[in-house]
Amino acid sequence: MATKPTNNPELLKLRDEIDGIDAEIQRLINARAECAQRVAEVKLEARKSGLEDAVFYRPEREAQVLQRVMARNSGPLDNEDMAKLFREIMSACLALEKPVEVAYLGPEGTFTQQAAMKHFGQWAKTKPLLAIDEVFREVEAGAVNYGVVPVENSTEGVVNHTLDTFLNSNLKICGEVELRIHQHLMIGKNTQQKAISRVYSHQQSLAQCRKWLDAHMPHVERIAVNSNAEAAKRVHSEWNAAAIAGEMAAELYDLDIIHQKIEDRPDNSTRFLIIGQQYVQPSGNDKTSLIVSMRNGPGVLFNLLEAFSKHSIDMTRLETRPSPSGSWAYVFFIDFKGHLEEEHVQKAMLEVRERAVEVKVLGSYPMAVL
Amino acid sequence: MATKPTNNPELLKLRDEIDGIDAEIQRLINARAECAQRVAEVKLEARKSGLEDAVFYRPEREAQVLQRVMARNSGPLDNEDMAKLFREIMSACLALEKPVEVAYLGPEGTFTQQAAMKHFGQWAKTKPLLAIDEVFREVEAGAVNYGVVPVENSTEGVVNHTLDTFLNSNLKICGEVELRIHQHLMIGKNTQQKAISRVYSHQQSLAQCRKWLDAHMPHVERIAVNSNAEAAKRVHSEWNAAAIAGEMAAELYDLDIIHQKIEDRPDNSTRFLIIGQQYVQPSGNDKTSLIVSMRNGPGVLFNLLEAFSKHSIDMTRLETRPSPSGSWAYVFFIDFKGHLEEEHVQKAMLEVRERAVEVKVLGSYPMAVL
Repeated sequence: MATKPTNNPELLKLRDEIDGIDAEIQRLINARAECAQRVAEVKLEARKSGLEDAVFYRPEREAQVLQRVMARNSGPLDNEDMAKLFREIMSACLALEKPVEVAYLGPEGTFTQQAAMKHFGQWAKTKPLLAIDEVFREVEAGAVNYGVVPVENSTEGVVNHTLDTFLNSNLKICGEVELRIHQHLMIGKNTQQKAISRVYSHQQSLAQCRKWLDAHMPHVERIAVNSNAEAAKRVHSEWNAAAIAGEMAAELYDLDIIHQKIEDRPDNSTRFLIIGQQYVQPSGNDKTSLIVSMRNGPGVLFNLLEAFSKHSIDMTRLETRPSPSGSWAYVFFIDFKGHLEEEHVQKAMLEVRERAVEVKVLGSYPMAVL
Repeated sequence: MATKPTNNPELLKLRDEIDGIDAEIQRLINARAECAQRVAEVKLEARKSGLEDAVFYRPEREAQVLQRVMARNSGPLDNEDMAKLFREIMSACLALEKPVEVAYLGPEGTFTQQAAMKHFGQWAKTKPLLAIDEVFREVEAGAVNYGVVPVENSTEGVVNHTLDTFLNSNLKICGEVELRIHQHLMIGKNTQQKAISRVYSHQQSLAQCRKWLDAHMPHVERIAVNSNAEAAKRVHSEWNAAAIAGEMAAELYDLDIIHQKIEDRPDNSTRFLIIGQQYVQPSGNDKTSLIVSMRNGPGVLFNLLEAFSKHSIDMTRLETRPSPSGSWAYVFFIDFKGHLEEEHVQKAMLEVRERAVEVKVLGSYPMAVL
C-alpha cells in the first residue's frame, strides 16, 4: 500500500493549524513544569523553617486536579482520555523534582502493574515484588514512596491476603485504583456457533454474565470451572463449547471472540489500593477504610451498621474475616464514603468506637477518579 | 507522617496559576483533537473522489511532529519527556478516529511491549503473539495495522529470526524504536564488597562494561556465562562474587545493586522494528533497510560497500547471513541513513543493483526520534 505525500490544500492547512496548537501546548506544559518547580522550592524553604512538610506528591491535590479536568471537559476527547493525559503531564512535572517510587505486586505485565501506571503515570519508577507482604515491607522501610496491591477482584473475589496484612501494619491507604475488566464469549477455531451446547467459566464470571446468557443462550448448559483461563483451555479442544473469559485468555489459547463485553454490569472492575506512610487531606470526594474488631454475639453486625446508617454514611464494602487472635471475635473491613475530617464521619466514628473492641483507621483517601 | 493542608499563600497562588494553565492546556488539546477529526473527514472525502488515501496514521508525520517538539523545546521539561507527552497526545487524538492496532512479540511485560507502547502511545490496541513469524502473519493478514519485533539486542546481538522472516515476507519496515538498556553491578545480601574476587555476566555485557571494570575492579576475575540472568542466579548463592545484569535480574534474585549504569556507552540500547504494509514518505531524517544477495567471490563485500561510500551514504549496520537458497551466495542486511526518494540514495541504489544478484527494499522509515 503506497501512500502519497499530500498536496491537498485543506490537509496542509489543518496540519499547520495543528503545528501551531502544538507549539502553544508545549509552551504551557513547560510553564506548568516551572510552576511545579517553584512549588517544590517553596516547600523546601518552608520545611527549613518548619512551616510546611516537603511532600511533593499529594494524592488529594492530584485527585482534585483530575476531578476538575473531567468536570470542565467539553470534548471531543472524552473525560477519561483527557484525565489520562493530565495524569501523564503531572507525572512528568513531578519527576522533574524526583520521580515517585512505587513497588507493586509483580511480576511485570500483571493488572497490578497496569494499576500502578494508571495511578502514577509513566514517569513513576516502578518495582515489581513477588508477594503482597514484600510490597508492604518495602513501603514500611521507606525504600519506595508507595505500594500498589490488589484488594478486590471481581472474578476472584476479595484478596484476603491484602486485608490480613493490614492487621499487622501501620501503613495507610493513600488511594485506590480501578481497572475495568471485560468478559467475552469465545470459541475454538473449529467450533460452529450453532453447535454450542455448553459454556464454561469461573462461577463468578458466569454470575456476572447471567442476564446476557439468559437472553442469548437460554438453553446452553453453564459449567463452572476453576478459572477463566481453564475455561478457555478446555474450549480450545472442544467443538461444541464456548468459554467466558478475558481478552488475554482468548489470545493465549487462540480462540475467536464471538461476543464482546457480555458482562451484565458495564462497570465490572478490579480494585487496587495505594499504600503509603502519608495521611491524606480531604479531596472533596473521599473514602475511608477501617478495621473494626467486634466481640462475637447476636446482633453485633447490625449494631455496628446502625452506627453508620444513623449518620447517613454510605458504606461501600464490608468484609468479615476471622480474628487472627483466635478468640471469639470477628474482624470487619469496612469502606465508606467520606473523609475522617468531615463532621458526620467523626460523629459516626465515635459511635463505632463505643460499640467495638478495637478500631483501626486504614486511611481516608480520594475515590478513584478514572 | 501527617501532612497538613497548606495555608501558605505562596503555595496557594502557585496552585491557582497551575489550575489556570491546566484549563488552557485542556482547551488546546481539545482544539487539536478537533483538527485531527477534520483531517480524518477530509481524508475520507478525498478517498471517495480518489484524490487521497485514507491512512490516518502517518509514521513520517508523527516523526516530524516529534522532531519539531524536541527542536523548539526550551525546558524545564527535557526534550525526551516533552516528546513522550506529545506521543500520548497524538495517540489519544488518533484513537478518536480509530485506535492503531499493533501486534508484538509477547508475552506481556517484555521489552517488545515496552517498545510498542513507546512508539504508539497508550491509546494503541496492542496484542501479544508468541512468535516473530506470528507477528508477521498477523500484519500480512491485515488483522492489525502494525507489528513490533526486536531486531538488535545489544546484549544478545542480532535477532536473526527477524531478519530471516523478512526474506519470505512482503511487509515493509515503517519505523524503528530504541530502548535504552542499563547494566548494573549487583551482589547477594550476604556478600561484602571487599570480598568480591570474580564477576559474572554474559560475554557481551562484560565487554560493554570493560572500561568501568578496568577502572574500578582491575584485579577481579571476569567470568562469562550464558546470560545475565544466569550470572545473577549464581551470585545469589556465592559470597565472593558480583554479577553484571539488568534491574529485573536484581529484583528476581533479590540482589543489591551496588553500582548503577556501569555500561561504557551511555546509549547502550535494544532496537525494534515497526512492520506494516505502508510505504512511508520521507520525514527528513530517515533510514533505509535492504536485503542484498551477492554471488560468493573475492572482493564481493568490498564491491558492495563501495557503491554506498561513493555516494557518501552512511551505512549504520551490515549483517551477513547465509542465503536460504543454499547456493554459493550470501545475503546481506544493510541499514543506511537516507530515504529512497533522495537523489544520492537513488544513485547508490542503481549501482548496488548492478553489482548484486538481487536487491529487496525493506523500507525507508523515520529514524527513532526518542
